Amino acid sequence: MILTQKENTMIAQTPPMGWNSWDCFGAAVNEKQVRENADYIAKHMKEYGWEYIVVDIQWYQPKADSHEYEPFSDVVMDKYGRLLPAPNRFPSSEGNKGFKPLAKYVHSLGLKFGIHIMRGMPRMAAHNNLKIKDSKFTARQVADPNSICFWNPDMYGLKCTSCEQGARDYYNSIFKLYAEWGVDFVKVDDIAREYPRCEKEIEIIHDAVSACGRDIVLSLSPGPAPLERAEHLKKNANMWRITDDFWDKWELLLNMFERAEKWCTHSGPGHWPDADMLPVGALRQDYNKDDRTRFTEDEQMTMMSLWCMMRSPLIAGGHMPKNDEFTLKLLTNKEILDIEKVTYSAHQLHRTSDEIAWIAPAKDGSAVYIALFNISDKKKKITFSLDEAEIVAKDAVELWSKKKVKASDGGVSLQVNAHGAAVLKFCR
Amino acid sequence: MILTQKENTMIAQTPPMGWNSWDCFGAAVNEKQVRENADYIAKHMKEYGWEYIVVDIQWYQPKADSHEYEPFSDVVMDKYGRLLPAPNRFPSSEGNKGFKPLAKYVHSLGLKFGIHIMRGMPRMAAHNNLKIKDSKFTARQVADPNSICFWNPDMYGLKCTSCEQGARDYYNSIFKLYAEWGVDFVKVDDIAREYPRCEKEIEIIHDAVSACGRDIVLSLSPGPAPLERAEHLKKNANMWRITDDFWDKWELLLNMFERAEKWCTHSGPGHWPDADMLPVGALRQDYNKDDRTRFTEDEQMTMMSLWCMMRSPLIAGGHMPKNDEFTLKLLTNKEILDIEKVTYSAHQLHRTSDEIAWIAPAKDGSAVYIALFNISDKKKKITFSLDEAEIVAKDAVELWSKKKVKASDGGVSLQVNAHGAAVLKFCR
Amino acid sequence: MILTQKENTMIAQTPPMGWNSWDCFGAAVNEKQVRENADYIAKHMKEYGWEYIVVDIQWYQPKADSHEYEPFSDVVMDKYGRLLPAPNRFPSSEGNKGFKPLAKYVHSLGLKFGIHIMRGMPRMAAHNNLKIKDSKFTARQVADPNSICFWNPDMYGLKCTSCEQGARDYYNSIFKLYAEWGVDFVKVDDIAREYPRCEKEIEIIHDAVSACGRDIVLSLSPGPAPLERAEHLKKNANMWRITDDFWDKWELLLNMFERAEKWCTHSGPGHWPDADMLPVGALRQDYNKDDRTRFTEDEQMTMMSLWCMMRSPLIAGGHMPKNDEFTLKLLTNKEILDIEKVTYSAHQLHRTSDEIAWIAPAKDGSAVYIALFNISDKKKKITFSLDEAEIVAKDAVELWSKKKVKASDGGVSLQVNAHGAAVLKFCR
Amino acid sequence: MILTQKENTMIAQTPPMGWNSWDCFGAAVNEKQVRENADYIAKHMKEYGWEYIVVDIQWYQPKADSHEYEPFSDVVMDKYGRLLPAPNRFPSSEGNKGFKPLAKYVHSLGLKFGIHIMRGMPRMAAHNNLKIKDSKFTARQVADPNSICFWNPDMYGLKCTSCEQGARDYYNSIFKLYAEWGVDFVKVDDIAREYPRCEKEIEIIHDAVSACGRDIVLSLSPGPAPLERAEHLKKNANMWRITDDFWDKWELLLNMFERAEKWCTHSGPGHWPDADMLPVGALRQDYNKDDRTRFTEDEQMTMMSLWCMMRSPLIAGGHMPKNDEFTLKLLTNKEILDIEKVTYSAHQLHRTSDEIAWIAPAKDGSAVYIALFNISDKKKKITFSLDEAEIVAKDAVELWSKKKVKASDGGVSLQVNAHGAAVLKFCR
Repeated sequence: MILTQKENTMIAQTPPMGWNSWDCFGAAVNEKQVRENADYIAKHMKEYGWEYIVVDIQWYQPKADSHEYEPFSDVVMDKYGRLLPAPNRFPSSEGNKGFKPLAKYVHSLGLKFGIHIMRGMPRMAAHNNLKIKDSKFTARQVADPNSICFWNPDMYGLKCTSCEQGARDYYNSIFKLYAEWGVDFVKVDDIAREYPRCEKEIEIIHDAVSACGRDIVLSLSPGPAPLERAEHLKKNANMWRITDDFWDKWELLLNMFERAEKWCTHSGPGHWPDADMLPVGALRQDYNKDDRTRFTEDEQMTMMSLWCMMRSPLIAGGHMPKNDEFTLKLLTNKEILDIEKVTYSAHQLHRTSDEIAWIAPAKDGSAVYIALFNISDKKKKITFSLDEAEIVAKDAVELWSKKKVKASDGGVSLQVNAHGAAVLKFCR
Repeated sequence: MILTQKENTMIAQTPPMGWNSWDCFGAAVNEKQVRENADYIAKHMKEYGWEYIVVDIQWYQPKADSHEYEPFSDVVMDKYGRLLPAPNRFPSSEGNKGFKPLAKYVHSLGLKFGIHIMRGMPRMAAHNNLKIKDSKFTARQVADPNSICFWNPDMYGLKCTSCEQGARDYYNSIFKLYAEWGVDFVKVDDIAREYPRCEKEIEIIHDAVSACGRDIVLSLSPGPAPLERAEHLKKNANMWRITDDFWDKWELLLNMFERAEKWCTHSGPGHWPDADMLPVGALRQDYNKDDRTRFTEDEQMTMMSLWCMMRSPLIAGGHMPKNDEFTLKLLTNKEILDIEKVTYSAHQLHRTSDEIAWIAPAKDGSAVYIALFNISDKKKKITFSLDEAEIVAKDAVELWSKKKVKASDGGVSLQVNAHGAAVLKFCR
Repeated sequence: MILTQKENTMIAQTPPMGWNSWDCFGAAVNEKQVRENADYIAKHMKEYGWEYIVVDIQWYQPKADSHEYEPFSDVVMDKYGRLLPAPNRFPSSEGNKGFKPLAKYVHSLGLKFGIHIMRGMPRMAAHNNLKIKDSKFTARQVADPNSICFWNPDMYGLKCTSCEQGARDYYNSIFKLYAEWGVDFVKVDDIAREYPRCEKEIEIIHDAVSACGRDIVLSLSPGPAPLERAEHLKKNANMWRITDDFWDKWELLLNMFERAEKWCTHSGPGHWPDADMLPVGALRQDYNKDDRTRFTEDEQMTMMSLWCMMRSPLIAGGHMPKNDEFTLKLLTNKEILDIEKVTYSAHQLHRTSDEIAWIAPAKDGSAVYIALFNISDKKKKITFSLDEAEIVAKDAVELWSKKKVKASDGGVSLQVNAHGAAVLKFCR
Repeated sequence: MILTQKENTMIAQTPPMGWNSWDCFGAAVNEKQVRENADYIAKHMKEYGWEYIVVDIQWYQPKADSHEYEPFSDVVMDKYGRLLPAPNRFPSSEGNKGFKPLAKYVHSLGLKFGIHIMRGMPRMAAHNNLKIKDSKFTARQVADPNSICFWNPDMYGLKCTSCEQGARDYYNSIFKLYAEWGVDFVKVDDIAREYPRCEKEIEIIHDAVSACGRDIVLSLSPGPAPLERAEHLKKNANMWRITDDFWDKWELLLNMFERAEKWCTHSGPGHWPDADMLPVGALRQDYNKDDRTRFTEDEQMTMMSLWCMMRSPLIAGGHMPKNDEFTLKLLTNKEILDIEKVTYSAHQLHRTSDEIAWIAPAKDGSAVYIALFNISDKKKKITFSLDEAEIVAKDAVELWSKKKVKASDGGVSLQVNAHGAAVLKFCR
């Protein structure tokens, strides 16, 4: 039946917005840093829609201190093989309280709380043969010794086919725990590009989320997820990565246009192709406190324009309290952020070696948005034909500069900086 | 510059509509048959937008009598290696008048005239070493002995790189002739899927069309054209095939949904991905006078609905004077045909094993079209969520039955026949 | 320098011959069974060249009871992560004596002793962070959490590049132990087909063998090893598998002809492409005491003929004490076995859909061997041209029947059974 | 039946030796040049086994003047579409005498005569619709308009499947003509690497050769022929190319070792993998009369050594009358040339980054040949172990220097020049 793709249609009706700890703190993030970002966002960004505060990878590893993973490290878990926050890094979790206290704090700010997990169970749970909660199976029976992640050494995947019930029991046991903690968002890693190997595992996780008793946004990582499995992803997840990790390099940003072009028709309520975190402001703080994004300001506006036009989730990656004025403005341009909520059916209009144009109609018919990107290395004049976009209206506002733009018969002409963007809103 | 994709933006501002002789007469079509179809279309279909009357392949071959090609047959051409209609099949061309008289007749009905050509020049022009008109090159110098078509034996491709000026001279010589004849539409064959081999040849043909002094719609065949070369196609042609030949088989129709999904964002004024002719009514008349389309009526409505939603050109393939009442109605449903003209940014909403949904917003914001396809083999109820499509309006008209449909909170529910379609128009 | 391929040229100057426990007992073999086979071989087969008695996989696993592997089972190892025989299965190893007593017994029979190992170290050695003997590295530092075997769950591969010295230390530590035990043959598994991933690991193992202070034949498994790395294999190992596991099925035997054809030119002193164990006599005794080879007698003679012509190592796989008269005769046909020692430069002469012919000249010029295989499903007469093989001599003996065969001008004609073989020895 | 691979076993019992016009004269060779080479060979080389005088491509093209092909040129043929020598280039053919007079002259010198043909029939034979001799089919019916050669524009392939009898008739008609002319060798081009497309065409040509009434060596070109079709080639041809065109570049010579390694076991009476012509002496005379081989003398000895060890046909490519003393000696080293006739079962022994060794036993058991190649760019000492090659004899002669070499226990040590070779003959 076409009606309901997901049991839970209350969440992610528009693309999720929030913050994630990876770009600034890697695997080493601690509770103090999370709280500082939550505080900042509640004060400066919440009103623009930013809400999810997400703790990324290895919060269960006491010794994590960078973006690298230490093999065979000891991890914190309960007697059922369920990972727990390392109390030395997340003091409020002391006494097996898990993330409940931190989630409560984030909620108290009017925000939502999220965590990252790897698919599978800790390798040590299998080697030590722990019991699975509320299950007749043991960890040894459910873990698959051949299913490992090639870039992180912590987990074994589960025997989702040969011991399906055991796999369901384990995933139910952890999502129930997350629901008890008050988690609103779970980013599951080592899974989105692992088709067809992890197809069944995705379905089991989706079912565990649906059954856990709490609204939880399900985010799959890393990409590239396979385009040809778009319908499976739409049915089973709220967002999924369309690239490998995205960082502050122009080549990666330029490359995102192609991915956005292919995925744009799959964006919609409850299911959002995800172009990954926004590497803005203070980054890689675990290595160097002075490190900031290497994107130019124009490139950052290009990134925000493209993410909004394609309706990607927006997850800021920088250490927010260190935002400068530009970064905060970039993230709080209301008219630009509105595109995520008021448009639909966006797509690329065309592309030359120098320029790319996107179109996004407003759902209520009141406006059409046109984004013009200068992908060349020089400032240049871009002329845009209204006929090409089949736009009736004549006048527009450019949303970064907030200036009016007048169209002649030949269309609209604008100077756009190298690697920069202009976003035109044509109102009827 | 983004402004103008093609020098000639007056043509093909909406998807071309017309008739083509291939599906009903193969390579054997004659002047009488063309005139009969033109007469019928002028009388019954012109007011709905049908206008191009196109003579398909091998009009220069005196002995063509079916959909098959005879190797090494003698062809009619002038002393410059330019093919001419075979006078035994096109009597009005007698005396080297070419298609001028027939074009004139078609124009007199208020319609437009088109022809099919193979890329390249006749093999015999090269072997007999003819001169090229207004050129210092001879046929032997310009023909490429290694560039042949694997399914038709008539032509050699041209040395578009190693003797570019000669190739330009030859293509200019034939398009000038077509302009003199009054040709409005040229379908160039053996070229659209031949990337990268024929990339340069496509550009040279585009230039020859632009320089010929007459508005000519340039259509490229056969498909599948490569999706990754969409921008090159948009720049150089008005329409291009996205499949190999399409015929009246459900498997081919079902398969078109995937192609339409990928290509839909590339439809726009002057450039239209082409899902091929509509095999409706009386087909394959060269083999059997009683042969008619094997599509069910529901399948034909599915085809028309998809072609219109994706804004494909519409080129009827049947022998029109033999249309029955259903076929004529199918081709003259004004509200369905309007979708081609009033919408933009259409795309597939989603797909299950049973159902497919498409959305197309009206350019002026006044309406949203939703097409619901039952791709299962049984009649079934399809329920559609307005939330999923982000539609504000509540009430719709189904455009094939012309019945009103009311949406509840759960959306819209409709019975749709096996392989059938419903097209809903939600007005604000 | 071409002179020496391996430091140790005393061993494997002709293809190794012996017995292995896998085909008859799988992972479940015990000490009693090994001794019974050694006793039998010493008494009945030693004089024909059979000498290596090899204990195959998982001798360290107390619960192994079949050809299957139990994931996450506990294994017997010392405090340096070196595996030890499970005393419940190998009682003489009690008190950490390892295989020393069993090797001593085998040596007392005039035979040699071998074991099987998986590449890498036990997963539990890494998770429990054991020390590596005579090394500054720990198991956690040397084990590679991403390097696993997809069909056996016991081990992690080693960081042969990123922690090369640690990997060398571990391999040196185990081969020193094996030398102390008196091991003469080590079959290393999960490695021969794992190019390029395991190329460095093969070199390190080769070095550990060379440095261990004892002559040990190094055998690599499983296949297919890549033909294009033949020179690397010849330099680093004494034998390596050219197929995946070989069993008693005609399809597998037929398929070996192709592999033999490709690999034959790589056979020579110290380096032998290995067509795998001979599944003859009583097999799969862990499942069914009555199970015997499914090969027909003709097929077994075909197998022996091919293995000898291509000079593959000969490792019997059945439970030898249960040999019937045919099996023992098959394995002790002196003239056939001689081919391994007196010939060189063998190769396939040609192949039709029915027949295959191989040739092998004697090193001393005194004879030429021709093997004729009937690969059809019917008995048939095979005629063989001496001209084709460039043989000067006229008369031959067929070595299975021990009958004289006379050549006419047309060559030699013989009746050969379906799936059977004839081996002709032409003497000057 | 294994006995006879080819009906005609009298020919090519050892690898064919001779001369071909391509390397020195390209498509432009004329009768005078052919006669000069035949005269020279009769006088200086015949006694060493050189016998076939082969006229290469486009002898039917009056205007051929280099190694390039002119598209759509007029060709000389009879009324049955059979090509004839262009009388302006081959005066003795005047009056439709074909190559009969030239063949007669070559025969009078005690040599044999050969020609090159392209597979298929002249394109003009099809376009002009000629009759096929002794056939009910016409050229138009038999030519395949889709089967062309991508590097030569003269011919169409034949419809070997859809009009098999017609194809047989045409090939029979030309081979009968060649038999009448007295042709002893036909090199068929555009065919050896065209599997599976030309598999049937090869069989039909083989049958036409067998039925023509004269012993004709059938040589297939160009390579690389596919190794996996070795048995088909052995059954249907006397020699076939294992590379694309071979020229005087070290990279191509070095690359031949790999090909030789793979193909060596397929050499035998009547069927010879062919490493292509020997580009020695005066080459490319159609471009520059002073052009000579770019191979060093050492490289030429390496080439001769490898060709002889692998038993490739030997076809000299230079303009023989311009041979200098070195070239003539190179081509007339009797002991080296003997290897082709007295050995069998040759193969590569091994290869390092610097050195390659080959072995070839004498058929009569009296000797073993070892070739040592220095493939490094520096002169170096090569030490060779007799144990490795399983050689009993101790003393050898080096066949290029004709010096005795004594083996010690460590084997044989020799200085070999960069890119050079030593060939040792060990006698019993």
